Amino acid sequence: MRSKKLSIKSGMPPGSLVLVGAESAEEVQVNRIEFNEKVLKESQGLAPEMFAVEPGVVNWINVSGLHNMGMMEMIRERFNIHPLVIEDILNTLQRPKFEDHGDYALISLKMLQISGEQVSTEQLSLILGKNFVLSFQERSGDVFDPLRERIRNKRGRVRGSGADYLAYCLMDAVVDNYYLVLETVGEDLEGLEDRIIKDPTVDYLRVLYERKRDTSRLRRAVWPLREAIGTMRSSGSALFTPELLKFFLSDVYDHVFQIMDTTETFRDTVTGMVDIYLSSVSNRMNEIMKVLTMIATVFIPLSFIAGIYGMNFNPTVSPWNMPELSWRFGYPFALSLMAAVVLIMLVMFKRKKWL
Amino acid sequence: MRSKKLSIKSGMPPGSLVLVGAESAEEVQVNRIEFNEKVLKESQGLAPEMFAVEPGVVNWINVSGLHNMGMMEMIRERFNIHPLVIEDILNTLQRPKFEDHGDYALISLKMLQISGEQVSTEQLSLILGKNFVLSFQERSGDVFDPLRERIRNKRGRVRGSGADYLAYCLMDAVVDNYYLVLETVGEDLEGLEDRIIKDPTVDYLRVLYERKRDTSRLRRAVWPLREAIGTMRSSGSALFTPELLKFFLSDVYDHVFQIMDTTETFRDTVTGMVDIYLSSVSNRMNEIMKVLTMIATVFIPLSFIAGIYGMNFNPTVSPWNMPELSWRFGYPFALSLMAAVVLIMLVMFKRKKWL
Amino acid sequence: MRSKKLSIKSGMPPGSLVLVGAESAEEVQVNRIEFNEKVLKESQGLAPEMFAVEPGVVNWINVSGLHNMGMMEMIRERFNIHPLVIEDILNTLQRPKFEDHGDYALISLKMLQISGEQVSTEQLSLILGKNFVLSFQERSGDVFDPLRERIRNKRGRVRGSGADYLAYCLMDAVVDNYYLVLETVGEDLEGLEDRIIKDPTVDYLRVLYERKRDTSRLRRAVWPLREAIGTMRSSGSALFTPELLKFFLSDVYDHVFQIMDTTETFRDTVTGMVDIYLSSVSNRMNEIMKVLTMIATVFIPLSFIAGIYGMNFNPTVSPWNMPELSWRFGYPFALSLMAAVVLIMLVMFKRKKWL
Amino acid sequence: MRSKKLSIKSGMPPGSLVLVGAESAEEVQVNRIEFNEKVLKESQGLAPEMFAVEPGVVNWINVSGLHNMGMMEMIRERFNIHPLVIEDILNTLQRPKFEDHGDYALISLKMLQISGEQVSTEQLSLILGKNFVLSFQERSGDVFDPLRERIRNKRGRVRGSGADYLAYCLMDAVVDNYYLVLETVGEDLEGLEDRIIKDPTVDYLRVLYERKRDTSRLRRAVWPLREAIGTMRSSGSALFTPELLKFFLSDVYDHVFQIMDTTETFRDTVTGMVDIYLSSVSNRMNEIMKVLTMIATVFIPLSFIAGIYGMNFNPTVSPWNMPELSWRFGYPFALSLMAAVVLIMLVMFKRKKWL
Amino acid sequence: MRSKKLSIKSGMPPGSLVLVGAESAEEVQVNRIEFNEKVLKESQGLAPEMFAVEPGVVNWINVSGLHNMGMMEMIRERFNIHPLVIEDILNTLQRPKFEDHGDYALISLKMLQISGEQVSTEQLSLILGKNFVLSFQERSGDVFDPLRERIRNKRGRVRGSGADYLAYCLMDAVVDNYYLVLETVGEDLEGLEDRIIKDPTVDYLRVLYERKRDTSRLRRAVWPLREAIGTMRSSGSALFTPELLKFFLSDVYDHVFQIMDTTETFRDTVTGMVDIYLSSVSNRMNEIMKVLTMIATVFIPLSFIAGIYGMNFNPTVSPWNMPELSWRFGYPFALSLMAAVVLIMLVMFKRKKWL
Repeated sequence: MRSKKLSIKSGMPPGSLVLVGAESAEEVQVNRIEFNEKVLKESQGLAPEMFAVEPGVVNWINVSGLHNMGMMEMIRERFNIHPLVIEDILNTLQRPKFEDHGDYALISLKMLQISGEQVSTEQLSLILGKNFVLSFQERSGDVFDPLRERIRNKRGRVRGSGADYLAYCLMDAVVDNYYLVLETVGEDLEGLEDRIIKDPTVDYLRVLYERKRDTSRLRRAVWPLREAIGTMRSSGSALFTPELLKFFLSDVYDHVFQIMDTTETFRDTVTGMVDIYLSSVSNRMNEIMKVLTMIATVFIPLSFIAGIYGMNFNPTVSPWNMPELSWRFGYPFALSLMAAVVLIMLVMFKRKKWL
Repeated sequence: MRSKKLSIKSGMPPGSLVLVGAESAEEVQVNRIEFNEKVLKESQGLAPEMFAVEPGVVNWINVSGLHNMGMMEMIRERFNIHPLVIEDILNTLQRPKFEDHGDYALISLKMLQISGEQVSTEQLSLILGKNFVLSFQERSGDVFDPLRERIRNKRGRVRGSGADYLAYCLMDAVVDNYYLVLETVGEDLEGLEDRIIKDPTVDYLRVLYERKRDTSRLRRAVWPLREAIGTMRSSGSALFTPELLKFFLSDVYDHVFQIMDTTETFRDTVTGMVDIYLSSVSNRMNEIMKVLTMIATVFIPLSFIAGIYGMNFNPTVSPWNMPELSWRFGYPFALSLMAAVVLIMLVMFKRKKWL
Repeated sequence: MRSKKLSIKSGMPPGSLVLVGAESAEEVQVNRIEFNEKVLKESQGLAPEMFAVEPGVVNWINVSGLHNMGMMEMIRERFNIHPLVIEDILNTLQRPKFEDHGDYALISLKMLQISGEQVSTEQLSLILGKNFVLSFQERSGDVFDPLRERIRNKRGRVRGSGADYLAYCLMDAVVDNYYLVLETVGEDLEGLEDRIIKDPTVDYLRVLYERKRDTSRLRRAVWPLREAIGTMRSSGSALFTPELLKFFLSDVYDHVFQIMDTTETFRDTVTGMVDIYLSSVSNRMNEIMKVLTMIATVFIPLSFIAGIYGMNFNPTVSPWNMPELSWRFGYPFALSLMAAVVLIMLVMFKRKKWL
Repeated sequence: MRSKKLSIKSGMPPGSLVLVGAESAEEVQVNRIEFNEKVLKESQGLAPEMFAVEPGVVNWINVSGLHNMGMMEMIRERFNIHPLVIEDILNTLQRPKFEDHGDYALISLKMLQISGEQVSTEQLSLILGKNFVLSFQERSGDVFDPLRERIRNKRGRVRGSGADYLAYCLMDAVVDNYYLVLETVGEDLEGLEDRIIKDPTVDYLRVLYERKRDTSRLRRAVWPLREAIGTMRSSGSALFTPELLKFFLSDVYDHVFQIMDTTETFRDTVTGMVDIYLSSVSNRMNEIMKVLTMIATVFIPLSFIAGIYGMNFNPTVSPWNMPELSWRFGYPFALSLMAAVVLIMLVMFKRKKWL
Repeated sequence: MRSKKLSIKSGMPPGSLVLVGAESAEEVQVNRIEFNEKVLKESQGLAPEMFAVEPGVVNWINVSGLHNMGMMEMIRERFNIHPLVIEDILNTLQRPKFEDHGDYALISLKMLQISGEQVSTEQLSLILGKNFVLSFQERSGDVFDPLRERIRNKRGRVRGSGADYLAYCLMDAVVDNYYLVLETVGEDLEGLEDRIIKDPTVDYLRVLYERKRDTSRLRRAVWPLREAIGTMRSSGSALFTPELLKFFLSDVYDHVFQIMDTTETFRDTVTGMVDIYLSSVSNRMNEIMKVLTMIATVFIPLSFIAGIYGMNFNPTVSPWNMPELSWRFGYPFALSLMAAVVLIMLVMFKRKKWL
């Protein structure tokens, strides 16, 4: 997580509305769903009416894209939100957190996406009021379509519950999606492990350290969420019904814990893989060196024997001087000697389990 | 612990009854034991009467298999259990925990089994009410037969005590079984250590890292249990008698601590074994390289001497040119020279303790 | 952070005014800005009037340079500051901290600068009173020019707010500047990573450990600040308006947390780079050894063959003695034999993936 | 600490009296000392009167050996002790702990013994009542003889104090004995360090890891004791006089801390020794490889020169073909050339500090 | 920190007056300074009057040397100090701590000294009463001479303040002296780093681990002091004026923190140096091996060529058999071939950056 563009704010007054993070090229989109047990109304567009809070219904206003500063300013005024809260929404490098501001609360968390083998994060900020939820995403495209279907089809409790339950459903959807991401990462790691064991080459180390950073990033996305939900549970904020605080938040809390556990397991796994990989590489190299050295070692005594019989002692001077050279089977003898040496060597290597 | 199938819940409304984990192929089985000091009645089957709570006795209803959603729904209604609690029971990847819900409490923990060298976990969920205990297992087959015998034979205090004591006995049986598992793991580790020291080959590293993950899994099964029991002790729930909170839970608490200690020891042992293994492998390779290099080193000077006397200087030109070649004992002299070099070399190696 | 010159204080009475740290060669400079919604007056110089507190306005007195002990003494007397607080201001190796002394509070933090690839720190001490802020820097040159511009141009809330908001703006400016530093460090690390992968040579290890120390220094500059701001928030000091404590300090607090996160990431990155670097170095060396050994291994059997045919067995004695020497194509045969050996060797190396 | 025999309890009802740990072969022995300022009476044997509590004196009943279940049962009844407390006494793998049960308190701690180079632990359980102390040891033989002497000779305050002071003296004796054990371990480590530096061979790694486990075992014996004493101090139990809680327990507490410190130091030392050992082994191997390679390297150019003059170019064809062979001092020239090469090589090695 | 002689206390009654630690050979010395704003009286010797507490003045009685048990006993009686407090003073392996005993308080801390490159510690125990300070040192020679000068010359606040301020000045002097020690250690480490980089030889590893232990010892001396001062600050003891608790103890507290930071930095530095050292050693060895292997590799093909032309194929049999031997420029050709091979080799090495 490089703090790209965070420095843009250096020198600006606090509370300045500046988007921190990657600016999306696409249009800002706003969707609005009003619902209660009986009513259901959906609308979209950028008209100011989109940001009115209808009484008697739950108003869910979803903003995809954060780069329309005029709209953000209007939202700030209409809902009477503190500028620093808006600044938090625009700062997409924000850590997950929960802030209770009496009339409304800010819930900030990370959505995870997997593209290829890379895990990327997108910030989701929720402003929860008495009967409205404002949700802010960096880009269009989210994990809330099943929730929208449930609202439309009256499945589950969401139509009969308040804004707090809707906010909980949004959080639950984000956290449930973590499981999907973790499974993909897990399978990716398994595949990587298999490949490493089959063919350890130099490049895996970097891949492994990228995976390590990925799991760190996952952890950093999830860990503060646990804290934020803890704060939420103990806040006793009037925005939440007691049942929600007791049952539902506990549920998300447990899930986040489970995800933390899995992330820890991944971390351990990657660390183990780095060790196995390094050991494989060094084993492979040692294997090479061993075989090559053994070839050399077998031939060195042979060359020595050949060297012996390449000496030029004068056999004519005395019968002590290399009589073998004039033996009838001198040459075959020398070759047999060499074969014997090779055999002895191989037997010795075998006995010492070097082969 | 891969989060297999946990992603199934993405998009479903919270509290949906979905089994998370491996679905058992076998039939769901229900056993029921009613007992007090005088009465003892056992029954089994899937009939609705099985789930009635008789007054004046302790009702222990044990469900083996979690994939009968209709039955789970019926249990939920009869005992008035919150859907999210049922969701926790069905989520077999749940961390051990204790939740006090006033009329009833959820105790979730892990049973451990060893098959071959692998440790597998099975979730046990207990719903403890005023005079009933619902126990949910993933599969049939458990560690409670001695407890059932004690109930039948009136051994121990269980017949004269309430539902809370029964729940404690169940937890105690699970935790006592951990000792068995730890002993097996411990003996397995000892055997592995012996094998590693005898014959260090490449494959052990993976085995060791699997053992490391096993001990991590053990720890993850046990560690949150400690926390859960702590919560239980300090909950002051009316479901428990004070004596149970004071004496019996302390006892389980201590056992869990002891198990944690042993798990930590295993972790240290495995880490040590990895180090010893890596060091053995590298020592073995160094040993090979050393011996081979020494062979080479001994022969190199010998080959040099042979090379000397293989030079073609013309002895007839002058008496300075290789007179040795025409010595009477030139060849024996050369061979003796070589033998002397070998001896010197060996003595030197010996003195430097390289042999 | 070597404790250079800290030992200067050994033996002096507590509260002695001694500058600890590098003494700046330049003149001490004092700037003064008085402002409220309507008034704005700037002045500079060393005259005693500079240190008067005008009522009805916010008085910001900025002192650049700490080595004028007379002036420090005068400030101490005029503002009735405890000698140990002045000692803290002069001790530029002080950890960031917040101390509430009733009438005034001390806020001590670190400004970061990057020169070349080195991160250096400069201490900023703030004395916040009811309507004044004294700021002490080690050297002239700071990150507050945009804030001064905002005061002059009435941008933002600073002109309409009190001394506490000014102090907050100063802290905010310092913390925002951390982002700039982190980005530079981050880019530096990326560049270093690229260079390491391209050309691993011996010198990088020291550079990497220097980077590690840099990130430790960053952490040490930032970590206690988090604590200090936490103390500030929970102090309930009358010097701060509630809004400031609630919103603005939370904002800085979050930023500091984010910066801690990034620092941790850097630490992990550097650790990973050390591992990758060491592994690259050892791989490179292994690579060299492998190629060289392979050259040797190919030629050893060839030399052996040449050695064979260099033996001096007498072919005239018997037809068994090296008849090849007298073959018509004996020499080409020997050369072909050698070529064949080379080929077999290369094929074997290829098949074992050593090439 | 293998959990040997702990699994024996699987399936038994909680509170069953079963000895966990190694069963001693010797007879159970009971010693009894009654004393106050004036009275002193010692007795031993297994008679039931041994377990009566005389009023007006401090009754110290020491049981050596835990395998007489009948006696344990009798003790349980006479002193009205909870079965789970007896279970804790019999479970010799229990962690050190303190449990206040109103009328009596359980203090469980470990005595350390050194036999050879191995540290073994023995459990000491104390039941402290208003005017009695029951002490349970696994075997006869303990560290309390000096205390018994002090009781007999009226040395120190023990004769004039209550049962709590006696319990404190027992704990103090156990903890003071830790120092003896630590000194022995420390000297053992020093000796090991010296031996490792003198002669690093393969076997030390296992020894070192055994020492590491020993220090872990020490730590596990001592660490929970600190916690137990902390609980004792803050229990405010009526069994202890305030002075004892304030002064004496603080004293033991400090000693335990000091012992923890020393244990940590040992751990660090062993870790350092592992590193030094591994580095020595690898240095030694590198040293061997270096010397051997240097021998090879010196002779390779020499052999090359010999090889040159072993070529069979026909000097009679042209004056360009190996005229050296026919020089008057050809051979001496070649030998001198070789000597020169050796010299140059040695100088080069020297200059590069390879020798 | 070996627990030498701590075992001496095994078997002694608690509170026995025994010196633990190295016994000084020199005489015990006692210095006494009585002072207030107007009065100043110094005396020394071993007379009983030395231990009287004059009213209306601050009595500072400094005892150098702890081995006069009679005097310790007298002090215990005169000042009515608990025997265990005296035991703490005599146990020079005591951790730094603060104990409030109502009428008096014990402050125990470590003075550091550097002799050669070794850091040694000496225990300083302070007994602070209403108007007296007893200070106990292991040996004569301390860091309090500047303080004595300030008392004599009326510099600073000490003459006008109470016994608590004197105790604070003593602590402050000790802590300020830590800076001196840290600087020396820091410079020592820098020097070591330079030497390691210049000439990595085997011996540094032990030196580095000794430095590591030194920093651990420093940390162990300083870390509990932080805790002790924290206890002191929150004790609310009547022995301290509020200003002292608020300002002065905070000051020492901050210094201790700063020293901890520096100690941590040293630890990191030493760890980094161990890594750099190990890497240098292995690089150096690799460098040697590389150069040697390259020499071997260059000569091997050359020797092969020489071997070729040393073969004895009979050129008279056919024109195919080694016609080069009879070429006019056969020998120069062979030499040129060798030169070419060397050149190609060198170019190849150069291109692969092995040279």
